[in-house]
Amino acid sequence: MTSGGDAGVGGLTEALRRFADERDWGQFHTPKNLAMALAGEVGELLAELQWLTPEESATVMADPEAGGRVRAEIGDVMIYLVRLADVLGIDLVEAATDKLADSARRYPVERARGSAAKAPDA
Amino acid sequence: MTSGGDAGVGGLTEALRRFADERDWGQFHTPKNLAMALAGEVGELLAELQWLTPEESATVMADPEAGGRVRAEIGDVMIYLVRLADVLGIDLVEAATDKLADSARRYPVERARGSAAKAPDA
Amino acid sequence: MTSGGDAGVGGLTEALRRFADERDWGQFHTPKNLAMALAGEVGELLAELQWLTPEESATVMADPEAGGRVRAEIGDVMIYLVRLADVLGIDLVEAATDKLADSARRYPVERARGSAAKAPDA
Amino acid sequence: MTSGGDAGVGGLTEALRRFADERDWGQFHTPKNLAMALAGEVGELLAELQWLTPEESATVMADPEAGGRVRAEIGDVMIYLVRLADVLGIDLVEAATDKLADSARRYPVERARGSAAKAPDA
Repeated sequence: MTSGGDAGVGGLTEALRRFADERDWGQFHTPKNLAMALAGEVGELLAELQWLTPEESATVMADPEAGGRVRAEIGDVMIYLVRLADVLGIDLVEAATDKLADSARRYPVERARGSAAKAPDA
Repeated sequence: MTSGGDAGVGGLTEALRRFADERDWGQFHTPKNLAMALAGEVGELLAELQWLTPEESATVMADPEAGGRVRAEIGDVMIYLVRLADVLGIDLVEAATDKLADSARRYPVERARGSAAKAPDA
Repeated sequence: MTSGGDAGVGGLTEALRRFADERDWGQFHTPKNLAMALAGEVGELLAELQWLTPEESATVMADPEAGGRVRAEIGDVMIYLVRLADVLGIDLVEAATDKLADSARRYPVERARGSAAKAPDA
Repeated sequence: MTSGGDAGVGGLTEALRRFADERDWGQFHTPKNLAMALAGEVGELLAELQWLTPEESATVMADPEAGGRVRAEIGDVMIYLVRLADVLGIDLVEAATDKLADSARRYPVERARGSAAKAPDA
């Protein structure tokens, strides 16, 4: 899955900024508050998967109802992550790319193969 | 902040897929496991902000050390979110955009102004 | 606040075990699943506090409605924590007491006074 | 596992209050901050279990090293939960017991048997 021909993270960042501005919600959107909101949404996502086996979780999207809820929760998580990165002035894709480069150094292919000690960030 | 001229979420998705494949880590990357890893990283992010006031959190990036840790944690959160969306076959930006459209309907500007009952997703 | 004349954590542990047994829910109560459920409930608790200032959060119990929701979420978190400790064979109060003793060594009063670097566990 | 002949949650509550007072940490221990710290510790607990299968998680205590880490994280979670309940003036065992009574009403044995839709709190 790649994000379509749309404006990607940059466009979403702009849309969320406008959404907050129009409602005068910027006052609530401190990094501390947004990080809590992000964690709250991740909690809702976990709740969708908590009683599933790992195998069941791998096919959750085949069920329109459960799959729809998972997609909505993932959307919420992304919303708060993008908004948080924006108020902090962090480029989300760049931060992730830098972290991945770190991980590649710390987990060279030959040593890490097949053992998920802690991956990919640890 | 908009993500640069890079490949955006799509490019990151590909890079993470390759990273996992090379290490044979796909076997560990069930949605259930990845959601836990995502929550673990969000927990580390919260730990960076937990004793700060909301005002202090707003200037955390001015401190190179604390700011660097926050950026790294945000990168980790994004890594697992992108990877999770990929194994579920969800377009992250699209899922967030759809959810934002929902929120716009549920929180019309005139009524939501200045009151962050629950925003922007609730 | 101390727990009343009741059986405390031990009594609650027994009640939760009976509750799960009667419903044949033991099969779902692996440590992995219970840890996710615990995190999900903590997410709901965060959602109650996310838009409050720290000062507002300190008086949240004065509002019967918000206070009732916070108390219910705290109850849910305790339920899953007690259940998780039970299936792992961990004595919850003992584990916390041991950890506190560690912290007392790592944060001697004279040095830690007034600076919440990371406390009380870090 | 029942907590030993010790003072239980009440004794732990007192010990944590004294610990915070001696270090003048009460100023940092708002409900908002403590809820974030609680979530941070739960994140560390999840990290210990994230790559394990549910079956592996059920025997994690048999490994002295991993089991010791899990026990320490559980202790940290309990520390912040007890502290949070204390500053909110909530009796932890009572709140959980009340919530369990609710769940017993919502999930009557005959209907809930063997199906963990969402349990025991949902």
